[in-house]
Amino acid sequence: MSLNARIGIVTVSDRASRGEYEDRGGPAIHAYLTAVLTSPWQAVPRVIADEQPLIEQTLVALCDVEGCSLVITTGGTGPALRDVTPEATAAVCAKLLPGFGELMRKVSLEKVPTAILSRQTAGIRGHSLIVNLPGQPRAIRECLEAVMPAIPYCIDLIGGAYLTTDPAQVVAFRPKG
Amino acid sequence: MSLNARIGIVTVSDRASRGEYEDRGGPAIHAYLTAVLTSPWQAVPRVIADEQPLIEQTLVALCDVEGCSLVITTGGTGPALRDVTPEATAAVCAKLLPGFGELMRKVSLEKVPTAILSRQTAGIRGHSLIVNLPGQPRAIRECLEAVMPAIPYCIDLIGGAYLTTDPAQVVAFRPKG
Amino acid sequence: MSLNARIGIVTVSDRASRGEYEDRGGPAIHAYLTAVLTSPWQAVPRVIADEQPLIEQTLVALCDVEGCSLVITTGGTGPALRDVTPEATAAVCAKLLPGFGELMRKVSLEKVPTAILSRQTAGIRGHSLIVNLPGQPRAIRECLEAVMPAIPYCIDLIGGAYLTTDPAQVVAFRPKG
Repeated sequence: MSLNARIGIVTVSDRASRGEYEDRGGPAIHAYLTAVLTSPWQAVPRVIADEQPLIEQTLVALCDVEGCSLVITTGGTGPALRDVTPEATAAVCAKLLPGFGELMRKVSLEKVPTAILSRQTAGIRGHSLIVNLPGQPRAIRECLEAVMPAIPYCIDLIGGAYLTTDPAQVVAFRPKG
Repeated sequence: MSLNARIGIVTVSDRASRGEYEDRGGPAIHAYLTAVLTSPWQAVPRVIADEQPLIEQTLVALCDVEGCSLVITTGGTGPALRDVTPEATAAVCAKLLPGFGELMRKVSLEKVPTAILSRQTAGIRGHSLIVNLPGQPRAIRECLEAVMPAIPYCIDLIGGAYLTTDPAQVVAFRPKG
Repeated sequence: MSLNARIGIVTVSDRASRGEYEDRGGPAIHAYLTAVLTSPWQAVPRVIADEQPLIEQTLVALCDVEGCSLVITTGGTGPALRDVTPEATAAVCAKLLPGFGELMRKVSLEKVPTAILSRQTAGIRGHSLIVNLPGQPRAIRECLEAVMPAIPYCIDLIGGAYLTTDPAQVVAFRPKG
């Protein structure tokens, strides 16, 4: 466990990676975490194309080299040919956490019926938790709000950094154990 | 994109394929689509036995040869030895869409507790969306009603035919953007 | 089908298997089944370490040698390194039933936000249904209550023992066929 948590923020988007499109997903994740986390942390941002090998390499480097306890991706979760973020995530994780995708689809479904098209998942690689979010900035906030209460304890269980949150924003749940 | 959408309707049932049992699932899907779709379409019906290689071959032919933008199966989703439709679907799809199965089980669970026994899924093969439905005609309608609002946009995203629906029946959701 | 149903109850816990910790999960499952089942049955209990090959061997022996129609595990479903019960279950099952995990996470989520960290699943091996439960005794009861109504019919479909329940506790649902 390091004193300062490192958190990877990965925007997966062909257009953003070529500079044709302003990355709005990465900054939305950064703003959310800044508002919510009270423990010290450092963002490790990446903007990459929708290429499965590149996504896998990026996730591996953020977990194994950069020492990120948490890696959050945005984009590449839909049904289109270039959407391969969940496949890349599954390929680099030792175990998957289907409950994250189930809950995020459930909350998004209250807003739009196309939420069932998002294939986002989450998983564990070593001491890192990887969580996929959809690409739309609106969906990023609603999805993070749904899963954030469980993230600090999850990272405790895998030996990552100790995260604390502003209870006015998110009550991080840690069962007495 | 073809002008006329082609939609595969696959009844997977040992008894129906031998003529021992009238196929009620395929006609129920056909009737639902006839009531809901306002864009021109053509059904490509099949009635086959619960044999995984045969189901896979049928799905591949409907997607790759017949050019179906949508393939809907009924039957073979339960826990019994001969129920292998989800495995055949997963085997021929490049990516799976777990949100379809989650939502269909959720709506069926409001009716019967045994809805959790249905292993139905959905996935993408090329420009085709494949969706599994349970075998019971009653469950077919409730499952299609749950997922239909997201199907036209899904098929847009994979480069299939442009489907429109009667909004009095189903409001097909297409996000702006 | 045997006259007496055999039900495997598997506690997966490093500490319980070394005797450092009293097994409370196995007895909680036994007490629940004793209260609910009205058909004759016999428990086949096991307490084992969180080792994937050992869990797989134990599940295989309970299904194939001991003839258990139902095998319920407790423990090893979380994100930690030693939590491998779902992987062992998937490895020995011919088919998985994702609806079990979805429903159990949904009911647990009403109690604690960390329910999404439980990776529990269920699956079929031959004539046996294997169901994973979390390790916490409180969660065992709420999860079993959620899925029990569907279990007797599931076991009918795979040719296992015929289970009946006390309707004051659980109404086992068997669709008219």
